[in-house]
Amino acid sequence: MSINSQDTIANSGIKINQDKELYSFNLDTILLYNFANPAKKGKVVDLCAGNGAIGLSLASKTSAKIYLVEIQKQLADLAQQSITDNHLASQVTLINDDLKNVQQYIAHDTVDTIVCNPPYFKVTDQTAIKDNAVLAIARHELKADLKDILSAIKVLLKENSHAYLVYRPQRLSDLLVTMNEEKLQAKRLRFVRTTSKKDANLVLVDAIKTVKTASLKVEPDLVIYDENHQLSKEADLIINGK
Amino acid sequence: MSINSQDTIANSGIKINQDKELYSFNLDTILLYNFANPAKKGKVVDLCAGNGAIGLSLASKTSAKIYLVEIQKQLADLAQQSITDNHLASQVTLINDDLKNVQQYIAHDTVDTIVCNPPYFKVTDQTAIKDNAVLAIARHELKADLKDILSAIKVLLKENSHAYLVYRPQRLSDLLVTMNEEKLQAKRLRFVRTTSKKDANLVLVDAIKTVKTASLKVEPDLVIYDENHQLSKEADLIINGK
Repeated sequence: MSINSQDTIANSGIKINQDKELYSFNLDTILLYNFANPAKKGKVVDLCAGNGAIGLSLASKTSAKIYLVEIQKQLADLAQQSITDNHLASQVTLINDDLKNVQQYIAHDTVDTIVCNPPYFKVTDQTAIKDNAVLAIARHELKADLKDILSAIKVLLKENSHAYLVYRPQRLSDLLVTMNEEKLQAKRLRFVRTTSKKDANLVLVDAIKTVKTASLKVEPDLVIYDENHQLSKEADLIINGK
Repeated sequence: MSINSQDTIANSGIKINQDKELYSFNLDTILLYNFANPAKKGKVVDLCAGNGAIGLSLASKTSAKIYLVEIQKQLADLAQQSITDNHLASQVTLINDDLKNVQQYIAHDTVDTIVCNPPYFKVTDQTAIKDNAVLAIARHELKADLKDILSAIKVLLKENSHAYLVYRPQRLSDLLVTMNEEKLQAKRLRFVRTTSKKDANLVLVDAIKTVKTASLKVEPDLVIYDENHQLSKEADLIINGK
């Protein structure tokens, strides 16, 4: 394990060990941390946890037990070191396994909140899988596809409990169709844009597990840069905590 | 038939006969007219055409044959009068029938562009159906539901041809899930908001008929009022043509 950076998600106060050669947290992570509203107690799961940035940071928002599920050994090792460094071993548990095996560790229908920043890209012949295998697995559906992930979310969540995801708008139909198959209904969407004049480049999703149809709110956009090319007030608050 | 108003959708130059007691076109209609990019020739269909406002106005954008499909006699009569008044009988044809019978008039897989402003509201026990039956049918899924409408669109459209819809964001999941069942894939979404700080109240959808998955663009929002409570430049251009 090589740690070459220790970073903090604004406001959380939690230090995240990173190996920037492998994969480091980025804007997606920070936005999802900010968007998620975890249950105050019970169980919280971070699926596709990577180096644990979101799940660990959530320890600043909740006293629930937090489980980080990450298949890749190199990233899981970093997450475990961050658990130790932040003295969070009594609250945060690392599961270094495939999310398809998650029921070996966490019983179905028992989780109060799930956060997930899944791989965004389909594996296709055109996919340029970079030399960095760890990064490729984090970004592409090599080990788990959208259906696998949403199925795990459905199995774990209690009825009417929330999952928070960050995803690419380009695959929004795919996401909502597959969520519907897995009895997950979007309650809130928030699109993220570089500027108000650009197409959205991320979407934040607040979903619940239910068999009913839900009424969806499409909230005001999160715009990162204002018309003067400065960080918008809201983005500054989220990213820099000021 | 009672005509108590003759109105024009900005820029189209087409006069629309209306009976404001029954149902009159509104912002949805104007936005959908503006958003739609009809094929320049061939066949264009306006499903759930009402008094024909969108389909008739499209005569200013295309020389294709235009078919207005409207189940309600009172609204179809207004549309027919507008066809006559605008001297468009050689280009525009009214079909006063249920869209479930549309193949009696238009062959499957022959239409180049469809526009549709469907009823937005499910019929539930809680639905307040107003005394005005014509308006109730225009707004609520009393005669055709989302599945019926999307199925008709799929049947009529040529492969890879476009349908343009306006809908409520509250039912976006429903829309995308049902579109997917009917082999319609969203290519562009544009959310419409009263101000940039409000939840979206309409969504404009550009979809194509295809069995492939499509990459979706979530375009910049259309914001109606700016921060000074004035019509935004873009909204003013769309609504007032200036």
